[in-house]
Amino acid sequence: MHKMAEVGSTIYLDHQSAAPVFPEALEILKQYAIEPFSPSSLHQRGIHSKKVLQSALECISAFLGCEETEIVFTGGSWEAIVLGIEGFWRRNASKGKHILTTPIEQKPILLLFDKLKNEGATVSYIPVDKEGFVDPKAIEELSTSQTILCCVQWVNPEIGSIQNIQEVANLCFNKGIAFFCDGSYAAGWVPIDLKRLPISLLVVNPNQFNGPKGVGILCVKKGFEIEPIIPGLNRDFGFWGGSENLPAVLATAKAAEITSQLFKEKIEKVSYLQKLLWNDLLTHIPLIALNGPQLGFGRSIQNLNVSPEFIGGESQVLSCDLKGIMISSGPSCIQKNLRVSHVFKAVGLGYQRAVSSVRISLGITTTKEEIEKFAKIYREVVAKLREMSIGWKKYISEQAKNEE
Amino acid sequence: MHKMAEVGSTIYLDHQSAAPVFPEALEILKQYAIEPFSPSSLHQRGIHSKKVLQSALECISAFLGCEETEIVFTGGSWEAIVLGIEGFWRRNASKGKHILTTPIEQKPILLLFDKLKNEGATVSYIPVDKEGFVDPKAIEELSTSQTILCCVQWVNPEIGSIQNIQEVANLCFNKGIAFFCDGSYAAGWVPIDLKRLPISLLVVNPNQFNGPKGVGILCVKKGFEIEPIIPGLNRDFGFWGGSENLPAVLATAKAAEITSQLFKEKIEKVSYLQKLLWNDLLTHIPLIALNGPQLGFGRSIQNLNVSPEFIGGESQVLSCDLKGIMISSGPSCIQKNLRVSHVFKAVGLGYQRAVSSVRISLGITTTKEEIEKFAKIYREVVAKLREMSIGWKKYISEQAKNEE
Repeated sequence: MHKMAEVGSTIYLDHQSAAPVFPEALEILKQYAIEPFSPSSLHQRGIHSKKVLQSALECISAFLGCEETEIVFTGGSWEAIVLGIEGFWRRNASKGKHILTTPIEQKPILLLFDKLKNEGATVSYIPVDKEGFVDPKAIEELSTSQTILCCVQWVNPEIGSIQNIQEVANLCFNKGIAFFCDGSYAAGWVPIDLKRLPISLLVVNPNQFNGPKGVGILCVKKGFEIEPIIPGLNRDFGFWGGSENLPAVLATAKAAEITSQLFKEKIEKVSYLQKLLWNDLLTHIPLIALNGPQLGFGRSIQNLNVSPEFIGGESQVLSCDLKGIMISSGPSCIQKNLRVSHVFKAVGLGYQRAVSSVRISLGITTTKEEIEKFAKIYREVVAKLREMSIGWKKYISEQAKNEE
Repeated sequence: MHKMAEVGSTIYLDHQSAAPVFPEALEILKQYAIEPFSPSSLHQRGIHSKKVLQSALECISAFLGCEETEIVFTGGSWEAIVLGIEGFWRRNASKGKHILTTPIEQKPILLLFDKLKNEGATVSYIPVDKEGFVDPKAIEELSTSQTILCCVQWVNPEIGSIQNIQEVANLCFNKGIAFFCDGSYAAGWVPIDLKRLPISLLVVNPNQFNGPKGVGILCVKKGFEIEPIIPGLNRDFGFWGGSENLPAVLATAKAAEITSQLFKEKIEKVSYLQKLLWNDLLTHIPLIALNGPQLGFGRSIQNLNVSPEFIGGESQVLSCDLKGIMISSGPSCIQKNLRVSHVFKAVGLGYQRAVSSVRISLGITTTKEEIEKFAKIYREVVAKLREMSIGWKKYISEQAKNEE
């Protein structure tokens, strides 16, 4: 499998917070930063820059199955999300003011919709079931003649639900509604082919397929118009200003290329490790629940979100940390602000389940040895924390009574 | 002086388009990208990330003479400009709709003002003289009770004029007008101390002091309020969303640290080389004019913008390029769009002067050998191009007649 730098004695299982960058991608980033290159220059290095930028566009568009002219690079995937949603709203609000979305989008997206409500938007939320799946049919029921945009995430980074994006996209297409998809946690992990999939606006996060940070991609399919948020002159058809971050774009293309080559192997390995881990936890830890969908087609192979009853998520994270294991008690973008995440609320998982949850997220560098070592240590951590839990002690003594 | 990678046989004199990144800064960027770090994580690597982010903030705030809490990182300096200007407008437009600026700001800034005009702003342009200097007194004459913002660039990247920012800042401060300063080409090249300089909103471009691309800095002085453009949750006080681009921020801090250490040495060397080069050109090339201020306190030591009469700027750039020398026929952000730049128009330099101009921009890696070699080659390039110029031939024959 793909080799990264040595991790030492730590085990990193927080790939959906931030992922390691392929050394080959970093090498390219370094190469194009140590000497300056700008595609706007007339001289040889400018011409070379234009050429490699063009190859990068070809590589990334092949990765996504879109046209080169449909790709806009931004300073990060969150910038790409704002450009896609707010940019679309600003250009198209005159055609209708109704927007559809789900209550489990990334939190900042939901806040962005709150902002658009102040500008006259009305937003309807497509219900989700307790595994975090939206019902595509609800789109039909909720949409009106005023609906201009439907915004549904592909993969939920917290509980791992993978939406039936093909069905959502087809439905929107048939109803003439633009479809914005937050694919931040999808690209590199689920097959994407925009030729077959009528997504109007797709956001891709290069870091999630081991590309660099500081660059985001918005794919704007032909026929859809957006207003620039950071208006510019010569870059990305004026959708995003400033001069290109060429090193990061080239590194992104490299990461896309490697990801394509390794895709099958990666998917096989990581889904195997996910199953291995979940079976181990389920076998050895009593009263542990999986949050989100069952393993399989509908769940991200990177993501295990589990709640061992009677102990807190944060104490699990900190205890694991003392043993050199990095996991998360929630997506990186929300934990500082919310104790019980909006996703847990939306799927109807109660307070207890939420506060005892941790997210274990696997990545391309994860090995079988790491998973086995982690499973063993995590078992001990849970046992240790439960020893200090009044709820657990009560449960145990009641169990004992029942057995008498 | 600071060592960079070998440039081979090429001579890069286009530092104001894009600058090489310090290898030490790239090393840090690599170190924090090859293994993922996110300051939002609870585990050791998250805690370490928070710690190094804090040191980076201390380092950058020391570099600028501001508070750590006044620094906002964005995805690039152009993003920082939009956040500063449009963010200020959105929050403060209710207090007044009049904005002051200059006609020689970077072109996208002027287009941004055109956009704000559509939203009800009135914009007055402070006149500039033929060296590109604004008259600070005009600020007093042009400002009204409705003036909320004055926007004046520090260093012009095209003709190198350095404004008397202290006087502009004081004037705005005394009149209670917020002062936005585009310091993209100043930081790292002129001393900056925001403790003594009442700039309300300052934009800094890390790449111009040999930091990475893909990161910008907006310094928002205490007491000034802006509206987020890319709203976020946990980062940069909500002014800019997404998770931090930690590798780029840390690399920026490293570049700031090295720049501080080398500042005096760099300034001495580059200003010496600038003088050396200009004297050489002036001595050996007849009918060559300097565009912008004379060398000295009012001119960027990086920048020589020259017009050798009778030959075109683009042909000079391309001829130099064939000999491995990279110079520019205009700032990277505008050349594709305008033959005669708005700056040349604003300072009243005619069409002939504009089309024959090239920008030679020096940087920290520039050596005396390179300057001497460039001067010699450029002399030959100009002579060769003039041999093909009807205007030049006419001039020569008239000279000969006059001498008879």
